[in-house]
Order: sequence, then structure tokens, then C-alpha cells
Amino acid sequence: MQSIRLILNKPLDRSYDVIIGRGSLGQLHREIGKLGRFSTYAMITDEQVRPLVTETLAGQLRSHGVEVVVLTLPAGEAAKTVDTVVDLCKQFLGFGLDRESLLLAVGGGVVGDISGFTAAIYLRGVSYIQVPTTLLAQVDSAIGGKTGVDLGAGKNLLGAFHQPLLVLADPDVLATLPPDAMREGLAEVIKTALIGDPELFATLEHEGSRLVDFRNPLLEEVIVRTCGVKCRVVNQDEREGGLRRILNFGHTLGHAVEAASNYRVSHGQAVAAGMGTAVRFSERLAGLGQAEARRALALIEAVGLRSRIPLGLNSQALLAALAKDKKVEAGVCHFVLLSGIGQPVVRPIPLGQLRRELESMLA
Amino acid sequence: MQSIRLILNKPLDRSYDVIIGRGSLGQLHREIGKLGRFSTYAMITDEQVRPLVTETLAGQLRSHGVEVVVLTLPAGEAAKTVDTVVDLCKQFLGFGLDRESLLLAVGGGVVGDISGFTAAIYLRGVSYIQVPTTLLAQVDSAIGGKTGVDLGAGKNLLGAFHQPLLVLADPDVLATLPPDAMREGLAEVIKTALIGDPELFATLEHEGSRLVDFRNPLLEEVIVRTCGVKCRVVNQDEREGGLRRILNFGHTLGHAVEAASNYRVSHGQAVAAGMGTAVRFSERLAGLGQAEARRALALIEAVGLRSRIPLGLNSQALLAALAKDKKVEAGVCHFVLLSGIGQPVVRPIPLGQLRRELESMLA
Repeated sequence: MQSIRLILNKPLDRSYDVIIGRGSLGQLHREIGKLGRFSTYAMITDEQVRPLVTETLAGQLRSHGVEVVVLTLPAGEAAKTVDTVVDLCKQFLGFGLDRESLLLAVGGGVVGDISGFTAAIYLRGVSYIQVPTTLLAQVDSAIGGKTGVDLGAGKNLLGAFHQPLLVLADPDVLATLPPDAMREGLAEVIKTALIGDPELFATLEHEGSRLVDFRNPLLEEVIVRTCGVKCRVVNQDEREGGLRRILNFGHTLGHAVEAASNYRVSHGQAVAAGMGTAVRFSERLAGLGQAEARRALALIEAVGLRSRIPLGLNSQALLAALAKDKKVEAGVCHFVLLSGIGQPVVRPIPLGQLRRELESMLA
Repeated sequence: MQSIRLILNKPLDRSYDVIIGRGSLGQLHREIGKLGRFSTYAMITDEQVRPLVTETLAGQLRSHGVEVVVLTLPAGEAAKTVDTVVDLCKQFLGFGLDRESLLLAVGGGVVGDISGFTAAIYLRGVSYIQVPTTLLAQVDSAIGGKTGVDLGAGKNLLGAFHQPLLVLADPDVLATLPPDAMREGLAEVIKTALIGDPELFATLEHEGSRLVDFRNPLLEEVIVRTCGVKCRVVNQDEREGGLRRILNFGHTLGHAVEAASNYRVSHGQAVAAGMGTAVRFSERLAGLGQAEARRALALIEAVGLRSRIPLGLNSQALLAALAKDKKVEAGVCHFVLLSGIGQPVVRPIPLGQLRRELESMLA
């Protein structure tokens, strides 16, 4: 018996820039130019974003010599399927996209997740950049290389870690976003402040409901700080082996709320409810002070989100959904809690105890 | 406009062992034990391999406490589709496979490619090992992390680079392989000798037709040397940016022969024809000596492969297929040729010149 070791230990730098700025979209052609030369450019967008952002952007790129083709997906989570990915790949073949092509994901989280996953598997991987057009995508989903599609009712069960070459977030594109969509993003902003940036938390507390207005002069700085925390976490734990779990603050229960409501409760609202519940757990199980807990709950409510699990969802339905979570192992759920604002701790909570906690809270 | 750099430059060691030895299959449970602890084990195989190898192997693993479930694919290239991958993933969910599960690919190249790709995208990536049961898979496809499925008529158009944790190749499992299937693997063995190992070439030349017999006492050493070259190449160029291209010797034209024959010509036979043609090109375009060219062609024929493009394929059909190749850029085909045995060189050949070369050869 002989053994050959296939050595794969070369350092590989996949670092990239996250550019944030009002008007930065107008510089996209320059930023693309800095990334190198590509054989073909394909922009992936959806029906909703296309008339608002993509058409203008494509025209601008073409006027600077970047000849993009535009591929349009239906808007909404229902498009996040393997079939969509296969269909995109067939279109890529038709347009002659090869390994030296660049994909541009222009849209919200769904467009980004689909595009990133397609980029990960087309011809065993091509380059792509993220141009997020919702606050949620700008502060969260476009950064960090998590891509994927749904499988039946299961969210993101098929996917890949595939990092983009660039993320470019222009707060001005949020002009077209309805207030509820802004709140979807604010849920992630608040989450980030709670787990990693007390100073950002103070800013958010000060601005309160004014955060919903995209013209808020502090919004750009809020996005920068939120992205900064995420970049630091992903830098330390790209594949969610440990630290990246703290980004799941509010999400473990949030995903269960979404599932148990058959996705009638939106992601942001579900995360808000998950965070509120986690804050209350934190008082009892992680030593979070009552005053800080109140401030956290008050901020969630101030931007127009609810910090409580919606009426009508019972603890049974939530636990059933939780038990299917990727983060539950051997009957124990790994919950991110807070010992203080900006101080996350991971606590293993057995599902039995979780039921009792939830029942006492929903009673 | 502000810019945050997401730093992703940590060295990550994904090195792994390729174990080769008669009887090594009997040690699989020990080798798995060395890899760490896993939550669940799923063996993926096909209908043909299951009764010959998989059943016994699964029984052996279970008797050593490794509780595997066995999932069986239809045999043959037709199974290499996204639908098969999606179906496998749904079965994984049914069996409760999570991120800490280990997949075992037990079969030939098709099983390995499908399993590896499924491992790459299920829950954004799970661990897997390769247990190749054909000579082709043992010396080539199981090593190096190239995984994928076909898209319509296009081979491997969807895929990923996803390295296994271990490759274990037992030459004794080749007992059940028909001679033609041995030849499929020998085509890759000869390719490897021609591009990277003159000493292996001498051994092959000496053994000639005896290589087809799996009992040949030199076979284990032949597999070890072939795997050694592939490991060295992949070590230097995992993603086929440059050097790994030399592994395509005989394959650029080989793939075109397969496609132009509607896949009636087998992969190994097509690669043999591609290598023979490349050897003849090499005399004219890369300075390969006539004597070495003759020896290369004689070896191909000695193991029962043909070094010429099959009759009935014309240069037009070949060029049409070539033009679609992933390795053709801007009308130029990057051909791997030989300046000597063990001395590969990459030469850009414009498609026009390629047509003339092929026509003069097929005339």
C-alpha cells in the first residue's frame, strides 16, 4: 500500500473591495476596469430592478465600452431554484460566455444569491461582482460569498461559498425602495450593531425612525459600519466554522418564524422577532442587563419592526421548524445571545429547554 | 465613496492522501477513522458497481461501526445531470445528512463526478472521499477535485472544484473490469507518461499488451506513478490556469472526436486518437523526433487502442466540435504538443491552420 500526498496549501488571496458611496454606481465601469480584462460581460437582474436601475446602468457601461448583455429573472424568492440556474447557464452558453467572462449581479438578495451560485458552478466557476440594490443586500447578503438556491421548501439548501471580485453599493439606488423594504435591511443593520458595534448602536438609537428615509445623511456611514463588521467576521471565519455563527443572531429563531408562517412573515420582520426573543433570552441566560435589553428592543420598534413573535405562531410550530435548522445538532440548538450590546456569546440550548422558554414567552 | 477591503488571504491546507494498494479497500474503515468524526455516512454508487463492490464494502464498514446508507444511481453517462444531483440532495435531506456528514463515492468517473459535485453544493459543501473502481477513475478522474455534470449535450458544463478528503484506489477491484474498460484507463496512463514521466513510458513500452490484465504485478506501480504525475501537476495549478492544461494532452481533439461521433466513440478511444494526432502534429510543429513519435504511436496501438481518428469523421465535423471547446479562445486553439517524451509544450494553433493540418492527415 502506497500513499501519495496531493499538496494543496498555497496561500491564495481572494480579498476584495466593498465600495460604498452615493453616486458610486456612476463609477462602475472604472471599478470593473481595475479588475482586469474579461471576454464577455453579462448582467443578471430581475423584472423589478431592470427598469429602475439596470437599463440605465447597462447603457452607462456600454457607453464606456463595457458591452454587457442583460438577463432578466422573475422578481421574488420563487425564482430561487435550480431550474433558474440551469436556465441561466443555457443562456450563458447561447451568448458564448466562457471562463474569462464576468457576471454582474444587479438586484436584491435573491438576484445576488442566484447569480453568485450560477457563477460558482458555470464551467466550474467564473468571476462575478455584486451590485446590490436593496439595503438588505448592501449591508448583508452581497458580502461574504454565501450563494445558493432553495430546494423545495428548504431555503439555501443548495449553494456554494463563492466570493465576488467586488461589491459596489450605492445608497442612492435605495430611492426606489418602499419603507418596508428599507426595514428589511434595517433589521440586519440593528443585528450587526448588537453583535459587533456599540458605537453604531448609539447612532441608530439616535436616528430611530429617520433611518427609514434613504436621504438620511447618516445612512452611508451606517452602511459602511455595518459592512465593516461583516467583513471583519467573514475575514476570521469564511466558512462559518465558528465566529461567523454570530451573524446568525436573531436568525435561528427568525428562520423558524418564517417557516412556521409559511413565509407570510418577511425575513426582516422574522429576524426582528428573532432578535427580540434572543434579547429576552439573553437577560435570563447570558447576563444581559435589563437596561440594555430595553434599549435593544426599543430600537427594533423605533424603525417600525416588531420585537415579538407574531401572534398565531405557537411554540410547537416554531420548534418543529427549528428542529430542521442546519444549526441544530443532536437535539441542541446553538443560539447566539448577548452578554452586552456588542458582546455576542453562543449558548447551546437543548430543544426541551427552548420549548419551555418559548412557552413562557408566548403565554 | 468609501472602500472596505474584505481580506481573505489565510493559508488553507486542503492537502489529502491518494492511497493505492492491492487490498487497501479492506482498510477503508481505518482510513476514514483517521479523517475525523462525522455525523452520518452516505455511499453513492451505481447499479453496476453496487453488487460487485459496494455491498461488500458497506457491510465491511458497518461491521467496523461506520453506519453507511447506500444511494444507487443508474449506471452510465446519461445519469450525469442536474436532475440526478437534485434527486440525491433530496435523498440526503430524507436521511438527515448535515454539514458534518461524509459522502463516499464508490464507482467509476461518472459516480465520482456526480458525487463530488453534489458534495460541493449540498448545504454549500460537505466532505467526501473517492473510492474509484475503474482504472480511468483511479489514475485520473478521482484525483484533483474536478467535479461536474453535463448540460444537454455539453459535458461537465456545470461543476465545481471540490477536493476530496481522501482517494483510495485498490487495483484488486479492477478484477471485474472488462478489457475495453481497462483500455479506457490505459489511454490516460499513456497520456501521463507522454507528458510527464519518461521512465513510466519505458515501463509501459516494455509491458505492452500485458497492461490490459489487472493481475499484472506492475499495475500497482503504474497506477502509483500515474497518480504521482497528476498530483504534482494539480499541486502547481489546481484551477487549470496554466500547467494543468498539459493534462489535456490528446483531450482537446479527443473531446471533439467524442462529440463529432455523437459519443459512439468512447472517451479512452477518442483520447487515443487525439493523442495519436497530437503526436503527429508534434513532429511538424513542436520538434518531436520521428523515432519518439513512432514509439508513442506504437504504445497506443500495443494496448489495443487506435492512434488515428476513426474513419467517417471528417475534418469539418471535428472543427465544428473544436470551436465549441472551452479551451478555444478568439479563434485560437491551445494545443498541448510534445517536444519529446515527457516534454509537453502548449502551442496556440489558429483554427484555420488546424483545419489544414487535419485535412492533410485525414486525406
